[in-house]
Amino acid sequence: MHTKRNLFYAQSGGVTAVINASACGVIETARAQGERIGTVFAGRHGIVGALKEQLIDTSKESAASIAALRHTPGGAFGSVRFKLRSIAESAAEYQRMIEVFRAHDIGFFVYNGGGDSMDTANKVAQVARTMDYDLTCVGVPKTVDNDLPFTDNCPGFGSVAKYIAISTLETGIDISSMPQTKVFILEVMGRHAGWIAAAGALAGKDRSEPPHLILFPEVPFDEDRFVEALRDTVERHGNCVVVVSEGIRRADGEFVAKSKTSDVFGHAQLGGVAPHLGEVVRGRLGYKFHWAVADYLQRAARHIASAVDVEQAYALGRAAVEMALAGVHGKLPILVRTSDEPYRWEIGQADLDKVANIEKALPRHYLSDDGFHITDACRRYLQPLIQGEDYPPYEHGLPRYVRLRNELTPKKLPDWTA
Amino acid sequence: MHTKRNLFYAQSGGVTAVINASACGVIETARAQGERIGTVFAGRHGIVGALKEQLIDTSKESAASIAALRHTPGGAFGSVRFKLRSIAESAAEYQRMIEVFRAHDIGFFVYNGGGDSMDTANKVAQVARTMDYDLTCVGVPKTVDNDLPFTDNCPGFGSVAKYIAISTLETGIDISSMPQTKVFILEVMGRHAGWIAAAGALAGKDRSEPPHLILFPEVPFDEDRFVEALRDTVERHGNCVVVVSEGIRRADGEFVAKSKTSDVFGHAQLGGVAPHLGEVVRGRLGYKFHWAVADYLQRAARHIASAVDVEQAYALGRAAVEMALAGVHGKLPILVRTSDEPYRWEIGQADLDKVANIEKALPRHYLSDDGFHITDACRRYLQPLIQGEDYPPYEHGLPRYVRLRNELTPKKLPDWTA
Repeated sequence: MHTKRNLFYAQSGGVTAVINASACGVIETARAQGERIGTVFAGRHGIVGALKEQLIDTSKESAASIAALRHTPGGAFGSVRFKLRSIAESAAEYQRMIEVFRAHDIGFFVYNGGGDSMDTANKVAQVARTMDYDLTCVGVPKTVDNDLPFTDNCPGFGSVAKYIAISTLETGIDISSMPQTKVFILEVMGRHAGWIAAAGALAGKDRSEPPHLILFPEVPFDEDRFVEALRDTVERHGNCVVVVSEGIRRADGEFVAKSKTSDVFGHAQLGGVAPHLGEVVRGRLGYKFHWAVADYLQRAARHIASAVDVEQAYALGRAAVEMALAGVHGKLPILVRTSDEPYRWEIGQADLDKVANIEKALPRHYLSDDGFHITDACRRYLQPLIQGEDYPPYEHGLPRYVRLRNELTPKKLPDWTA
Repeated sequence: MHTKRNLFYAQSGGVTAVINASACGVIETARAQGERIGTVFAGRHGIVGALKEQLIDTSKESAASIAALRHTPGGAFGSVRFKLRSIAESAAEYQRMIEVFRAHDIGFFVYNGGGDSMDTANKVAQVARTMDYDLTCVGVPKTVDNDLPFTDNCPGFGSVAKYIAISTLETGIDISSMPQTKVFILEVMGRHAGWIAAAGALAGKDRSEPPHLILFPEVPFDEDRFVEALRDTVERHGNCVVVVSEGIRRADGEFVAKSKTSDVFGHAQLGGVAPHLGEVVRGRLGYKFHWAVADYLQRAARHIASAVDVEQAYALGRAAVEMALAGVHGKLPILVRTSDEPYRWEIGQADLDKVANIEKALPRHYLSDDGFHITDACRRYLQPLIQGEDYPPYEHGLPRYVRLRNELTPKKLPDWTA
């Protein structure tokens, strides 16, 4: 016989169009398990909410509001970029978190994030054990970058992929209408992995259609080769659509476009490679060009989310709670592909400590020989992930996204001072 | 009793998400008038197609293909930026055009474009008269910039407005999830008129919600005032979402972000004001920021077109043919608003020579006193234009846009040499 305990859920890192669908899966599943799970608390701004004892009481939200999370982008409880260091270095933070969990009788910890967050979840799991606190820790994968190992894909990626593929298709049609504009450059996210850039390729049946050239972080950027390929494309097709990952680097490892700041994880903040390439086009080829930088637009574009992605995000949230209830600890649910066409998948499991801090780049056999496009194998992998439209409801011409009340539960501990 | 004559249709200038819906209206209406209108020829790349005698025979396209134009972005026959000068200066071009029309028995000329194009249509109308050639000339308004006078709005604008409002809403939710990112800057089109930037305001109920600040070409850019307003917004709301028109200028009239080129109309090519403002934020306030430049994405985004915009674009194409058949010459159909809420509109008419080369800026009473936002009057004007979704059909996760055969009709004249 189990005692009833509370669940703590937190969102971490860059948000996506569907991380709230995972939250919806977590909360709806927990609510259906009222005999085992008491209140679902959500961290106000992720793990920082646990440290500050800012616990959002999701039981104050109506069933309709929680259901609406499924079609609402962003992180409904607030996310955060906050990395705990090793257990030795950040001992005070880990211990504080467990104290907060103890004060609110948290028996289940569900952490929704990318590789860094799975690392944190894993360490929380370890510290709970050493502090002899009974806590079941489960992760929920999330990242638009699609760079987690083991899982077929990461929730959030399919929707960005769909947005980028559609945007590439639409802008490719646009530029084909304009004989004077020869080059269009679309900059997309992807710090170290070119999955999002690769998704642009779905806009055309092959590289005779936009996008003609794709620049991946996995392929060292060689300006001469780029200029040559671009000129050749314009001469052959009349114009050239380029999809470029923000994270492309030169052979010496230097980012082609590096801002002057870096984030708290020590990652360089990127952005601006498209205008840089535009200047290269202007200076070396003299072509008229246009460029766009999608930035947050791509990861927030819930209006054109992939139905497959929404369904998987929800299913992983649900699976995480089911795993926690089954006593599975230190793991996360993952997606296992069983068939490309028709696309079939099921839920598997992986260890948090094996997922943490591994970045899955595009494998070599997904890249064309010249490194400017994808292979059929990559296309077979990507194609199912953008299937289906999952339109949000509209009101007055805009999607009707939910804003939660986000009421904090009363504190029981002294304030935390870092 | 009328003789049956052919119709020449051409698309001009920057394309939109719905210019093909106007083409659909033109062609479907002409096809239904088989006793009066023979073949609809479309200019390959607009008016240049008339000069080069590159006439696309649209009768080779199936009814299904023509119907699919209604949901296909871009310019299906190719557009062009090509401005004829005065009748005296460009006499050879105007005369050549009339010769081509005579060779192909063109009795109706329907020109789909913005202010510059209405100017051209007007001059063609005049030259036809002086050459004693029987030609009925009618315009169809089109421009994402929404800067034509007389008409309630311009087809193409409503869909860009919807895209920008949704993108502002979605990115506003995204940044609200991320406590460390303080500023998001979205650069939108609008060379001289701030209509598209104004549409971003529809994302929030008032300026307490994103977008907090809007920068219009109509308001001289003052960096100190901008920095002050931005700091104030971040302190008050925790972050600041800025929508900025590419065309903002300093008090001395200089564009804040000017590329080194200009287009054939002598307009400066713009782009890059968002990263410039980002550097201002970094240098003067030290806030973490993100920026996006929507560029072609906004005007090609047929996937989230405004249903009102699509319907109006089609209706104006249909009206142009009906006017031409009624012998109306030297005019264009326009939209006349008869009610804000519920939104009601009907088709009116305006003179080509009065529309040409007038740019309708945002009126002062549409701008807030401090110049950083819109008034309720502006909101009442804009709100109806983004109503309704008109989703294209999808296949394999992507919109199924049509690509026409675009077969040229055999030439009858010697080649044209400019």
